[in-house]
Amino acid sequence: MPSIIESVPNISEGRRAEIVAAAAAAVRRVPGVRLLDVQSDPDHNRSVLSLAGDAGTLKQAILSLFEHAVQAIDLRSHQGEHPRLGAVDVVPFIPIEGATMQDCVALAREVGEAVAERFAVPVFLYEEAATAPHRRNLEDIRRGQFEGLPEKLKDPQWAPDFGPSQPHPSAGATVVGARAPLIAFNINLGTQDVEIAKRIAKAIRHSNGGYRYVKAMGLLLQQRNVAQVSINMTDFTKTPLHRVFESVRAEAARYGVNVIGSEVVGLVPAQALIDAADYLLRLESFNPSQVLERRMREVE
Amino acid sequence: MPSIIESVPNISEGRRAEIVAAAAAAVRRVPGVRLLDVQSDPDHNRSVLSLAGDAGTLKQAILSLFEHAVQAIDLRSHQGEHPRLGAVDVVPFIPIEGATMQDCVALAREVGEAVAERFAVPVFLYEEAATAPHRRNLEDIRRGQFEGLPEKLKDPQWAPDFGPSQPHPSAGATVVGARAPLIAFNINLGTQDVEIAKRIAKAIRHSNGGYRYVKAMGLLLQQRNVAQVSINMTDFTKTPLHRVFESVRAEAARYGVNVIGSEVVGLVPAQALIDAADYLLRLESFNPSQVLERRMREVE
Repeated sequence: MPSIIESVPNISEGRRAEIVAAAAAAVRRVPGVRLLDVQSDPDHNRSVLSLAGDAGTLKQAILSLFEHAVQAIDLRSHQGEHPRLGAVDVVPFIPIEGATMQDCVALAREVGEAVAERFAVPVFLYEEAATAPHRRNLEDIRRGQFEGLPEKLKDPQWAPDFGPSQPHPSAGATVVGARAPLIAFNINLGTQDVEIAKRIAKAIRHSNGGYRYVKAMGLLLQQRNVAQVSINMTDFTKTPLHRVFESVRAEAARYGVNVIGSEVVGLVPAQALIDAADYLLRLESFNPSQVLERRMREVE
Repeated sequence: MPSIIESVPNISEGRRAEIVAAAAAAVRRVPGVRLLDVQSDPDHNRSVLSLAGDAGTLKQAILSLFEHAVQAIDLRSHQGEHPRLGAVDVVPFIPIEGATMQDCVALAREVGEAVAERFAVPVFLYEEAATAPHRRNLEDIRRGQFEGLPEKLKDPQWAPDFGPSQPHPSAGATVVGARAPLIAFNINLGTQDVEIAKRIAKAIRHSNGGYRYVKAMGLLLQQRNVAQVSINMTDFTKTPLHRVFESVRAEAARYGVNVIGSEVVGLVPAQALIDAADYLLRLESFNPSQVLERRMREVE
């Protein structure tokens, strides 16, 4: 079966549409790659590309993206609200189907090494690909940003995993790694009381004693006048959607409030939804190969 | 987006493994086709192939299957428990993704015409492709079987839709059509009382006033000593899995019985499970394009 890996490179350009379009074209011209989505944020001055393919295809696509971005983006004149280290700022690899996290870690190392060699850009490995615990967290790696790189790279704690120990003059440095799929999942409550949403968020999130792979906050949807628990699911294979949903429902009931709906923002792996169906229907020993579209890929 | 259509041809050979293997090979050699499954039943003396692809690919694959089957299978010496009319007995086309029922009806007509012309086999169109209401039902078309064909074909009510009005001497006739995906879905009860399963089956099935696209019966799983409602879902897009599950749960509760599990037998379109997740999670305006694997196919 051909494996499916997703990559979500973030580039430091969200204003000049022609540069973003050329970056997308650089990815798309690699045979076999699927460019699933491109989103630009002018305030952040940053664009997020979503692509999928097998390991070899993604390596080509990321190198092709670098070729364009290193030429077209100059961090010395880049301004935006979002912290960034480089022209291609961060490149995560995400196992979707027929690929393990270890496959993605290996791919991150391979791509990181190739990028450093070909473009003289220092590369940090992060998350599951990190080479030390203090280098796991993206925010920690990015602290100090592009402007702080010359200093940071001198610190032995922050020596790059690949490439030179000084930043690329215009393209800075890049963070490459492997992580589980992120799912943006919001649950809407039948109340305008944002305090209830905040209390529920606190109950379910990891940082306050909740589920390990949940980040959450409570907010008010101004237009609908509806309180929302806004959730980032950082590993649905270990903390599944349906469990979080049921917990939010139970916590809301404790305040006499109903769950009126939920939403998935952006892309979601089929398996996350199939797991929820499996739970609802109490399926006994259901095998992913029974899903017709998946079987199709398996017999390819 | 490349469309996905499924076809589940049934051939009248379930004992001679070499004939079945050659039939599978005849299908598999068509570029682009995916042979998902082959199941042979020696008592029925019949095999069921599951294949998927786009319309053009499936047409090629079915013609290739006929080429082999018409040569290798002789109905004059065929015996088995399952009723049958021909060497290739029935060929349904099933819309899975990016294809409508109308596309499958058009494909059934096209394949039926080509089969009749190339192999001199009379073809009946059935289900959604039927040309008259009394010709919709497969059982009605097949009544009288291979042995009754010469007589049946003389009846103006049963003139074939394509091909000669006498059967092919050895390959008989074939039924080609279009239908919704079938899902075999069984729900297990926390009781040994098969009467409860039978009463629930009666409550949910179409023939007794239940859901339009549900066939069901109650039975006892001897090995587990568990009563089961065994269900055929004939159109999950109109009668969804989760609605039937919830009804069975409610009916069982009326007897003080719990649902202890369920099982999907064989293949199931991803959408049937995603619909169940959508129901559980109360998703608001979820779009199938948000499923990563599906988006991948869309950008192909």
